[in-house]
Amino acid sequence: MSLERVEQRRSFGGEQCKYNHYSEVLKCNMTFSIYLPSNKEQKEIPLIWWLSGLTCTDDNFSQKSGFQRLAEKHQAAVIIPDTSPRGEDIADDEAFDLGQGAGFYVDATQAPWAENYQMYTYITEELSNIASTLVPHFSRKESIMGHSMGGYGALMIGMKNADRFQAISAFSPISSPSDVPWGTKAFSTYLGENKADWKEWDTAELVKKEGIPPILITQGTSDGFYPEQLNEKPFLENAEQHGQAVDYNKAEGYDHSYFFISSFLEQHFDFHMKHLK
Amino acid sequence: MSLERVEQRRSFGGEQCKYNHYSEVLKCNMTFSIYLPSNKEQKEIPLIWWLSGLTCTDDNFSQKSGFQRLAEKHQAAVIIPDTSPRGEDIADDEAFDLGQGAGFYVDATQAPWAENYQMYTYITEELSNIASTLVPHFSRKESIMGHSMGGYGALMIGMKNADRFQAISAFSPISSPSDVPWGTKAFSTYLGENKADWKEWDTAELVKKEGIPPILITQGTSDGFYPEQLNEKPFLENAEQHGQAVDYNKAEGYDHSYFFISSFLEQHFDFHMKHLK
Repeated sequence: MSLERVEQRRSFGGEQCKYNHYSEVLKCNMTFSIYLPSNKEQKEIPLIWWLSGLTCTDDNFSQKSGFQRLAEKHQAAVIIPDTSPRGEDIADDEAFDLGQGAGFYVDATQAPWAENYQMYTYITEELSNIASTLVPHFSRKESIMGHSMGGYGALMIGMKNADRFQAISAFSPISSPSDVPWGTKAFSTYLGENKADWKEWDTAELVKKEGIPPILITQGTSDGFYPEQLNEKPFLENAEQHGQAVDYNKAEGYDHSYFFISSFLEQHFDFHMKHLK
Repeated sequence: MSLERVEQRRSFGGEQCKYNHYSEVLKCNMTFSIYLPSNKEQKEIPLIWWLSGLTCTDDNFSQKSGFQRLAEKHQAAVIIPDTSPRGEDIADDEAFDLGQGAGFYVDATQAPWAENYQMYTYITEELSNIASTLVPHFSRKESIMGHSMGGYGALMIGMKNADRFQAISAFSPISSPSDVPWGTKAFSTYLGENKADWKEWDTAELVKKEGIPPILITQGTSDGFYPEQLNEKPFLENAEQHGQAVDYNKAEGYDHSYFFISSFLEQHFDFHMKHLK
């Protein structure tokens, strides 16, 4: 395994690091960021995953959310993957909501995407193995959060791996992907036109499963993508019918930006830490 | 006076706004950002100025520092000017440390810069007048902080206007501009080769004045520009000789980035608010 640390910056007493590595799963070079809190040698450290939205890299959350203050306060490690495979030889699309920067965290089955767009396996297996080597005294407790496309990813990965993740939270997630333009475009492109093949990736379906982790969602009411792309109704209706613990909150006047995310991140960290202790 | 609000985003309960206006002083269109806390209609609100470093706009501090949490906690307004005049018709230089993005907050006297590079007058007069119309129940208490070139600007403007600013703080400032490459390049270009003309803008000279505001400085020890560009010795020696209240702190292992600034911003806000109450 190639793994090169290319940045190490002190932040709130801990370390904000950036790594490059060759991904066997994605068949390209990848970059990710990880925050390690200051007491990492003394305490058992849980790991929180952050999945970003369309067009983002590992930098957006790292530079704009202010999460390091909270990770240090709670002595949690936080890992931030990129949002797709990357590179000149990797399939791409001119649209911002498809291809590089828009991997949707699924394992693609359709050409030409299937060759590299295996983000689900990359995150849940390859990057998970790497992360466990980087967090000293890893408590083996994990949770997952994300924004928009990454909010979808957090819900989807968290519910498909209910025995692994103690909590899930999302900011303005694409929670009902089969019912909105971003989701149907990505699913039909990466998974094909047969909607039966979408179900195992559809968060509005996955929420029917027994034993999923507790879920917290925050949605800004002045979000320009709400409700068209971020329609919550199918997801919430299915959650309610199956008695799931989904805490869905509207944030009055907030938009889709990191100004919104940073405003509510402390609430989300409190929620995660309650379940990671 | 033209003044157009082009962004208004909710952040930590308050409002992060961006304005465009035509500057009569700089003779070009300018952009600035301002944060107004949630209780702006009920309470007397002080105003904190943030001056950014080389290459920055009003966006860097707004998007990367997480200051809004602290401004809302303390119910302070924060205004963030751009770092130079801007536009295709405005004098510029290929180097990142001269011209647009590098105005150094002085009033230039040399051609071609003098025509537009009047940042000192812009900030202390024109933008100050605008700010006072934007902060409801403005308490008329003000303080100033900044980073690198903006740390120099905060020290310089704060000390030249000691009756106006209650406190000054700076992250990794160019505190001894006449002794370092960035400062001598800017001063000789904007103010001319006669070093006698630099003195009124030289923070290592201004610190000798009686009655300057209390000063807090934080400098990271792993800052790649320290000590070459950020040599503190002439400034601190003069401060000590004249019995000035300069609290200079080294932050072990921190660099020049916003990861450093955000880590110590709460300390700086606490210092400012002690003097703005």
